[in-house]
Amino acid sequence: MPELRKDPIVNRWVIISTERGRRPKDYPSPPPKTNQGACPFCPGNESMTPHELLAYRPNPSPPDAPGWSLRVIPNKFPALKIEGGMGRVGDGMYDRMNGIGAHEVLIESPNHNVELDEMPPEAIEACWWAFKQRFVDLKKDSRFRYILIFKNHGEAAGASLEHAHMQLIALPIVPELVCDELAGARRHYDYKERCIFCDLIAQELGDRKRVVAENAGFLSVCPYAPRFPYEMWLLPKNHAPRFEESDGDTFYHLAHLLKDCLKRIRAALGAPPYNLVLHTSPINGKGDDTYHWHIEIMPKLTKLAGFEQGTGFYINPTLPEDAAATLRSPVL
Amino acid sequence: MPELRKDPIVNRWVIISTERGRRPKDYPSPPPKTNQGACPFCPGNESMTPHELLAYRPNPSPPDAPGWSLRVIPNKFPALKIEGGMGRVGDGMYDRMNGIGAHEVLIESPNHNVELDEMPPEAIEACWWAFKQRFVDLKKDSRFRYILIFKNHGEAAGASLEHAHMQLIALPIVPELVCDELAGARRHYDYKERCIFCDLIAQELGDRKRVVAENAGFLSVCPYAPRFPYEMWLLPKNHAPRFEESDGDTFYHLAHLLKDCLKRIRAALGAPPYNLVLHTSPINGKGDDTYHWHIEIMPKLTKLAGFEQGTGFYINPTLPEDAAATLRSPVL
Repeated sequence: MPELRKDPIVNRWVIISTERGRRPKDYPSPPPKTNQGACPFCPGNESMTPHELLAYRPNPSPPDAPGWSLRVIPNKFPALKIEGGMGRVGDGMYDRMNGIGAHEVLIESPNHNVELDEMPPEAIEACWWAFKQRFVDLKKDSRFRYILIFKNHGEAAGASLEHAHMQLIALPIVPELVCDELAGARRHYDYKERCIFCDLIAQELGDRKRVVAENAGFLSVCPYAPRFPYEMWLLPKNHAPRFEESDGDTFYHLAHLLKDCLKRIRAALGAPPYNLVLHTSPINGKGDDTYHWHIEIMPKLTKLAGFEQGTGFYINPTLPEDAAATLRSPVL
Repeated sequence: MPELRKDPIVNRWVIISTERGRRPKDYPSPPPKTNQGACPFCPGNESMTPHELLAYRPNPSPPDAPGWSLRVIPNKFPALKIEGGMGRVGDGMYDRMNGIGAHEVLIESPNHNVELDEMPPEAIEACWWAFKQRFVDLKKDSRFRYILIFKNHGEAAGASLEHAHMQLIALPIVPELVCDELAGARRHYDYKERCIFCDLIAQELGDRKRVVAENAGFLSVCPYAPRFPYEMWLLPKNHAPRFEESDGDTFYHLAHLLKDCLKRIRAALGAPPYNLVLHTSPINGKGDDTYHWHIEIMPKLTKLAGFEQGTGFYINPTLPEDAAATLRSPVL
C-alpha cells in the first residue's frame, strides 16, 4: 500500500509509492515500457491496459475495443490505490496516512503520431469534457480533497510513453503550492475584496507586455515572476474558482487558445518537452470562491540547478516580456 | 542588471538574470564552457577567472597564482550583481527590486580529478572554514538577508564544469522554502518550547530506522517524508541556528560525516549526480534562534514528473527506511 507522509517542519505531504519501487540498481534507468513494440494506448491493444473508465465513441462500439476517439483508463502503475480507508496515524512526531487516491490516464487520440497541438480543436475540447466527467464522478468520493490534472510531454518532462496522454490524480490532501495559492488569493480578497487573478488579468490586458494571446474566453500570459523561461499561464477571463463548473463556451475557448499557445511554443522553441498543470479549487468542502482556476505550462528548456529544488528559489535567464514578445510572433 | 521579481499570489521571489540570457535558439543547449580544453579551475589557469576573494595556500604564494589548496572566486557568470542599491519598486500590483547579491565559487581542490568524497577530511573541513570566512565578510553588507551555499555535482544536477566546486549566493531576500522552514520551526517552538529539529534528532536516534550514520557531532538520516529517493539530511546533534557560528569541532565532525555519507551514496548508487544545499538561519536581523542549520543531499536518480514542480507535491518510489538500510550497509 502506498503511503502519504507529512514533513513535520513545512507540512508538505509526499507519496511514498513503493509498488512502483525500485532497488538501488534500478536507478537511474527510466521505468520499463509496458510492452516492447506494441503501444498499449493504440487501438487494438486495449487488452494491455486496465478496463476503461470512460471513452468517447463516434459510433457505437463495445468497451475496451477499438472505435474510440478518446479513452480514460486507470493508470497501470498507479502512485495511489483506490481501495481502503484514510488510516491516519501518528508515528511519534510524524504523521502518515494510507496512499489512497485515483490515478488515471486520458489517451487524447487513437492516433499514435499526433500531438495535442496538432489535433482539431474539437478533440482538445473533448479532453476537457472527459476530465469534467471524471471530476464529477470522483467528487462523490468524500475521501478526496484535490484532483490534479497534468500532462508530461516528452521524456525529459517525465513522460514514459510517447502516445499523447494526460493524467489525473485524485488526492486525500491538497498539494502544498495550491495551499499557498489559496492562501494568497484569500489574503488579497480579505484586503481588497477582489480576486487576485482577476486583478492580474486586468493589469496584463492593460499593459499587454506579457500577453501571448487571447480570445473571448481566455487570456494567455507569461507571468510577471516566472520560475522557468517561457512559462505561460492560461486563465479564464471571467472569475471562476472551479474547473469542473466550466460550460461548453469555456471549453470551446480553452481548446482553441491552448492549441494556439502550444503551436506558438513549438514554432518559437522547436517542440520542447513541457509540463502542463491544471490549478483549481479543492473539492469536498475545502474549496474557496476567492480562487481562480487556470492552467500553467512550463517548457523544459533548462536543467534545474539543484538549489532550486532545495530552496524553492529560481533563477530564470529570460524576461517574461521577451518571452511573450517571441511567443506573440513566432514563425508559425 | 538582473532583477528580483515577486509572484503576487504566493510571494515567491525569482531572479530574472538576462545577462546569462539566451535567445530561443540557444535553448536547450547547456551554457557554453568557459574555454575549450583548459579548465579555468585548474592551477596555472587562474587568469581565466575573476580575481580570487580568498585562497588557502599551504606555503606563501601570490594571489591568482598556483600554490593554493582551495580558492574562492566571484562567479564569472553571476546570477546577481554586487553593485547597486535595492531599488525596490512597485509595478502596478507587482513588486520588484534590483538583482543585487554576491555569487561566488569555491574550488574545492587544485586536483581536477578528485571528487569531494575522495578528498582527505582536512580538505573538506577547509571548505567549511572558507565558507565561514565568506559568511562573516558578506554579513557586513546590510543589503543581504540570506546566504545560500550549495553544490551541483554532475551535469544532470546542473554543474557546468566538472572540476569539483561549490557555490555561494548572497541574497537580499530569504528563499521561500527557508521561510516555510523558519515558520514551521517557530510554530513548533511556540507550542512545545523545543526545537523541532532537536525533537526530530531525538526520535531518529531512538528508533534508528532512518539513521544512515553518525559521529560525536553530526547525525545523518533519510528524512521521514523525503521528496526524492535516497534524500539525506546531515544535522548537527546540538542545537545550532547558524552555520557561521560553528567551531572547529563542528567542522571536524561535519567533514568526516559528509565524506562518509558521500562515499555511501557512491557505493550504494554508483556515483549519481547530486545536489547538496546548506539550510541556515537568515542573516542581518531576520534570524531565528528556533531554527537549526543542516545540510540536505539529494541524489538525482529520477526525472521529476512535471506536476511536481507545478504543485510542490512529490512521488517518491523508495521508502526512507529502505534507503537508510541500503546506505547503512553499502558495498564500501
